[in-house]
Amino acid sequence: MKVEKISELTTNRMSIYLRCLNELAAEGTKTVSSESLANRFHLNSAQIRKDLAYFGGFGVRGVGYYVEDLREHLMKILGLNKEHRVAIIGAGRLGTALTDYYGFSQTNFTVAALFDTDKEKIGQKVGAVKIFDIKDFAEVAKRDKIEVAVIAVPAQFAQGVLEQVTKAGIKAVMNFAPTPLLVQGNVKLKTVDLTISLESLSYFLAHSNNTNGGSVKSNLIERRGKQLKKVEI
Amino acid sequence: MKVEKISELTTNRMSIYLRCLNELAAEGTKTVSSESLANRFHLNSAQIRKDLAYFGGFGVRGVGYYVEDLREHLMKILGLNKEHRVAIIGAGRLGTALTDYYGFSQTNFTVAALFDTDKEKIGQKVGAVKIFDIKDFAEVAKRDKIEVAVIAVPAQFAQGVLEQVTKAGIKAVMNFAPTPLLVQGNVKLKTVDLTISLESLSYFLAHSNNTNGGSVKSNLIERRGKQLKKVEI
Repeated sequence: MKVEKISELTTNRMSIYLRCLNELAAEGTKTVSSESLANRFHLNSAQIRKDLAYFGGFGVRGVGYYVEDLREHLMKILGLNKEHRVAIIGAGRLGTALTDYYGFSQTNFTVAALFDTDKEKIGQKVGAVKIFDIKDFAEVAKRDKIEVAVIAVPAQFAQGVLEQVTKAGIKAVMNFAPTPLLVQGNVKLKTVDLTISLESLSYFLAHSNNTNGGSVKSNLIERRGKQLKKVEI
Repeated sequence: MKVEKISELTTNRMSIYLRCLNELAAEGTKTVSSESLANRFHLNSAQIRKDLAYFGGFGVRGVGYYVEDLREHLMKILGLNKEHRVAIIGAGRLGTALTDYYGFSQTNFTVAALFDTDKEKIGQKVGAVKIFDIKDFAEVAKRDKIEVAVIAVPAQFAQGVLEQVTKAGIKAVMNFAPTPLLVQGNVKLKTVDLTISLESLSYFLAHSNNTNGGSVKSNLIERRGKQLKKVEI
């Protein structure tokens, strides 16, 4: 298996394939061809073959891919075969909502700690997760083997939090504050800015004629487009 | 101003430009050139000129763009000059966290109603927003002039909710359930799937050598890449 860096769009497609394979595995499907994978999930079969071949070509002529084998390979490629421990900074509504976000457990991420500046919150728990003083981040992160920080604080504090967590050695950060952050060093930052998605909805509402012009066929294509877009999240 | 449909990547860049202009306006800056806009916010000046020219070319030779005029134009293009009323379906932690998400008010979206199936929640309020029975969606949506539905329910219920809201005439939907949804008719669907972002962090952690190899310069480029990626959300 090649381990050199590949583009984020490719890893995002790997995520999509993995999700599809999980569904097939849950149904008891043992093998799948790139064509039936593409048809079933509205993906591109040539792209699937190209992406998977990049990692060593797991397909077997006349059989397709072994669902379970391919799942395991993809999980390994995506680094999902080991636990990643997460700290959420900001114990407001968003931070606490994220604490039991099922997507974390689905991807082998464990929320191990919450951080806040509010003295009333510090020491409390959200489910099983304790809220710590942000001042103690470096110490707690080291002790609890935190690898990933999720920034869920108001925009004006986000850059400061980013600097604090990267200074403490965190290499992977997910930011929910709708502000561009400047990252230093070999750190991976993903910003989730919902206002951009909202504005694309707003644009659609402003410019759509609001007639039911779409046929089911055109919507299947639309859906395919959506999925391609989805991988860019 | 051309009103024909443009690509989502272009509208997403418009969102980014608008955010930058808001910042400049808040500082009292009156005019800005595409170059200084690009330098300041790590964007591409040729791309800025191309995007804006598409809508009729607001730049003035030797002056650049008038910040306030351009802001107003962009808001109009993005449909942000009118209120959009939002219903959130699912009054769990995520749904209630979204209820007072400041990104909504920032984009002229107003959360007007929450919906749930839980009898204990129905009739309660989150802030000023009432929780209704999902059964009454069509009626409440019509009465409260809801245009946008936000799906914040578990994955297995998301397709059913999507069908219910589109049947009630909703044309713009934001989905937080990590599952691909099949949309019918002239409906715009945005799926926010955090697991894909998490898996790209996981991939990074699995394949990064975790040395501090990046210089500040390379990180500025990295940040520029981030912003380009951000517009694809």
